[in-house]
Amino acid sequence: MAKDKKKKPQRPKAVNPRGFRDYFGAKVTARGQMLRTITDIYHQYGFDPLESPAVETVEALGKFLPDVDRPNEGVFAWQDEDESWMALRYDMTAPLARVYAQHRNDLPTPYRRYAVGPVWRNEKPGPGRYRQFYQCDADTVGTPTVAADAEMCAMLSDVLEAVGIERGGYIVRVNNRKVLNGVMEVAGLGGPDQESARGIVLRAIDKLDRLGEDGVRALLGEGRKDASGDFTNGAGLGAEQAEIVMGFVSALRDDNAATTARLSELVAGSAIGMSGVQELETIAEAVAAQGYGTDRVLVDPSVVRGLGYYTGPVYEAELTHEILDEKGRVRQFGSVAGGGRYDDLVKRFIGQEVPATGVSLGVDRLLAALVAQDRIATDTTGPVVVTVMDKGRVADYQAMVGELRTAGIRAELYLGNPKDMGRQLKYADQRNAPVAVIQGSDEAERGAIQLKDLALGAGLAANITTNEEWKAQPAQMEVARTDLVAEVRAMIARREG
Amino acid sequence: MAKDKKKKPQRPKAVNPRGFRDYFGAKVTARGQMLRTITDIYHQYGFDPLESPAVETVEALGKFLPDVDRPNEGVFAWQDEDESWMALRYDMTAPLARVYAQHRNDLPTPYRRYAVGPVWRNEKPGPGRYRQFYQCDADTVGTPTVAADAEMCAMLSDVLEAVGIERGGYIVRVNNRKVLNGVMEVAGLGGPDQESARGIVLRAIDKLDRLGEDGVRALLGEGRKDASGDFTNGAGLGAEQAEIVMGFVSALRDDNAATTARLSELVAGSAIGMSGVQELETIAEAVAAQGYGTDRVLVDPSVVRGLGYYTGPVYEAELTHEILDEKGRVRQFGSVAGGGRYDDLVKRFIGQEVPATGVSLGVDRLLAALVAQDRIATDTTGPVVVTVMDKGRVADYQAMVGELRTAGIRAELYLGNPKDMGRQLKYADQRNAPVAVIQGSDEAERGAIQLKDLALGAGLAANITTNEEWKAQPAQMEVARTDLVAEVRAMIARREG
Repeated sequence: MAKDKKKKPQRPKAVNPRGFRDYFGAKVTARGQMLRTITDIYHQYGFDPLESPAVETVEALGKFLPDVDRPNEGVFAWQDEDESWMALRYDMTAPLARVYAQHRNDLPTPYRRYAVGPVWRNEKPGPGRYRQFYQCDADTVGTPTVAADAEMCAMLSDVLEAVGIERGGYIVRVNNRKVLNGVMEVAGLGGPDQESARGIVLRAIDKLDRLGEDGVRALLGEGRKDASGDFTNGAGLGAEQAEIVMGFVSALRDDNAATTARLSELVAGSAIGMSGVQELETIAEAVAAQGYGTDRVLVDPSVVRGLGYYTGPVYEAELTHEILDEKGRVRQFGSVAGGGRYDDLVKRFIGQEVPATGVSLGVDRLLAALVAQDRIATDTTGPVVVTVMDKGRVADYQAMVGELRTAGIRAELYLGNPKDMGRQLKYADQRNAPVAVIQGSDEAERGAIQLKDLALGAGLAANITTNEEWKAQPAQMEVARTDLVAEVRAMIARREG
Repeated sequence: MAKDKKKKPQRPKAVNPRGFRDYFGAKVTARGQMLRTITDIYHQYGFDPLESPAVETVEALGKFLPDVDRPNEGVFAWQDEDESWMALRYDMTAPLARVYAQHRNDLPTPYRRYAVGPVWRNEKPGPGRYRQFYQCDADTVGTPTVAADAEMCAMLSDVLEAVGIERGGYIVRVNNRKVLNGVMEVAGLGGPDQESARGIVLRAIDKLDRLGEDGVRALLGEGRKDASGDFTNGAGLGAEQAEIVMGFVSALRDDNAATTARLSELVAGSAIGMSGVQELETIAEAVAAQGYGTDRVLVDPSVVRGLGYYTGPVYEAELTHEILDEKGRVRQFGSVAGGGRYDDLVKRFIGQEVPATGVSLGVDRLLAALVAQDRIATDTTGPVVVTVMDKGRVADYQAMVGELRTAGIRAELYLGNPKDMGRQLKYADQRNAPVAVIQGSDEAERGAIQLKDLALGAGLAANITTNEEWKAQPAQMEVARTDLVAEVRAMIARREG
């Protein structure tokens, strides 16, 4: 017993687990508002919401490591009582494949669904890298037609304009994995024994942005020594082969027709390549028929991200406004959404290929861009705060709060220790309250209240230099108790007007 | 190699983990709409949103088992790379306590926050019992005044009316743990060595609903044998002691003042008991001053749920409409929200008592009640479906879809295999589409389209008995291509009108 008593209970630390964070107030509201605007567009396009649980079997996620009976380290996983492994979803696509396989007899085909929510990655957290973040996806499952892909591109354009990005401030670029496959064939890299070379080519062109054409050329050939002296082995392509690959990533021309014509030249003789070019032509025609010009949706073979994952059309939405990167260099804001066609995800479950295409939005990146461009409010007006001058009259104050709320005005009673008014007004300021209501026994006797315009007060404090100016300002005024609602409303209107 | 090839890869099962489920379409929309209505009221009352991550340290959740270095089985938990335990939150209150302790220097005090989202329980799933479900909480942290509790009761009332429950169809009941403590004192159960007896009393009165007064009386005394012959030990109270406890749970009178007067008699002589009665009086006055009668907020000592957990006022919102239970007996729908005052949750972290009070809504139960009462739409109108008669003219069809969307009409192109029109119309029906648009080459030549009123068609099919009646109905009509938007809009309006 004595031993037990000595053991001082240690207090738990009030911290998030590494890589997790809390969101407060206006940040929650702003994200919710943005997501509602986005899903309204998804809905307008005929997509229906799906909410699958955060938890999936590791088996369904396809995250078992080969040859070992435990999940990939990239997911947060644990064992259920019956020893089966469960994990938090790491994206919205794997759950969609499971849902479609499970419910396909009850779902319409094609199945259009959107999904919004957090996903979890068991990765090393770092600056700006969190282990829980939002995704906002739309996918069409069960159709091979590239009309579905064209629609995704148009929808991305509509979504970006709906949330407030101006036309010209973004571009949706489209490419096609099949064209790259055709390029590989033409370059003599199509054989089954050349998978590793194709992998190196994919990784090389994926670095186009960072290394430029010369860097990629080196990686396509013998290899490349970087600034630190490290050497990366190349794909070992000859000059002519490398030229074909480089021709692909630099095939962008003045208009979509010229670009696809150039791609046709490059993949002439490859059936898969020509099929890819035709798909791009179809997409270009479809979006043009709906009035989306190349200032909005552009066939651009330099889009290489996702080419290793998707099986057909690949699309990416970029914001084109310039920002300074961490080294102070001017660059474009870059990608906020991407997607493409994947034909094999549902096959894992049912053994049958189910063609599908979809888009995923980088919610946090897009929100950051909107905040930086002042397209979304990040401070919300706080409630009107009714202060407590006289502890015995709390019911009266609460009645004032009730009147304000009934009139649709956000309001609250100060619920902290009412011992001094300064503390109450400081609280009201901290809440970003537009107005504080004050009623001492004097005012109560003559049926009056004091209204303090907190926004005006704060603004004036910055500009006023003399006491006379201060006194002349209407930052605080006495009004009749019966006019509470009307006067508070007028004061808020003056602030917002 | 030969061995490897023989090993047929097993397909993953397309199933949810036990106790988890998917939500589709209108069910997702309806819940989102209900939650928005609720959080709008929370916001109106001055509460700010907080979104904490799904994952907390097990330490912060307070879910380590005593004397063993692993978490309580009730939470889903796993170890991070550094061996520390993480878990999914099982409610919204434990994360709030962590957040307040962590950020208290930057947060206003009192801190009013609301939180909406899923929580996870590692419990045995059963019929209607899931391991992930929604909570929608509002709490005020950092104030001891029962004005905060009164506000919770008023807010619950407002919330229920806002989502569509009629006045009279619900009641918010209030009780107070301190009054029960006073009752225990008066009954001679207040001593430190009588904790176990107090526990039995708490559990006994918690069964009032199920066992009735006689059953509870038995449990307060020697014990009770149930129908199966099992015997439950009682608290061993004498008749007089039991009478005092029973007096508490049956103290409900005609109005709040009469009830608190009766409670005063019961706890006379107990300081803690009288303090609890005064709190109930203050709450009753505060809600009355704001116009909430006892038809909405009622002091009711028979509310015993939560009395073991909370430290002061306890409140519960019940829907009073009658339903049939699983055995076909008529009973009230019952509780959809509950809450109360808890003064010790933050203390775990900072060693200092931080008084707080809050309410938690049973989202799924409330939604079920609203659906049963037809207060919320559970079928949504599908998109207008533009069908594909002629595969070569997909771009034309897509342009029609574009026009409809631009006009604000939810619309989509049929993206499945267009080989027969029957399949397309079946799809449109399955999507609950109001209108199908059809244009073959004949119609295209004369600048026309066919509109099929699918709702009317479905409705007519049920009522029509002769072919003549069928032909006379305008379930399908030809209109000019240029009138697409106007005619579709008119057809939808006729449906909804």
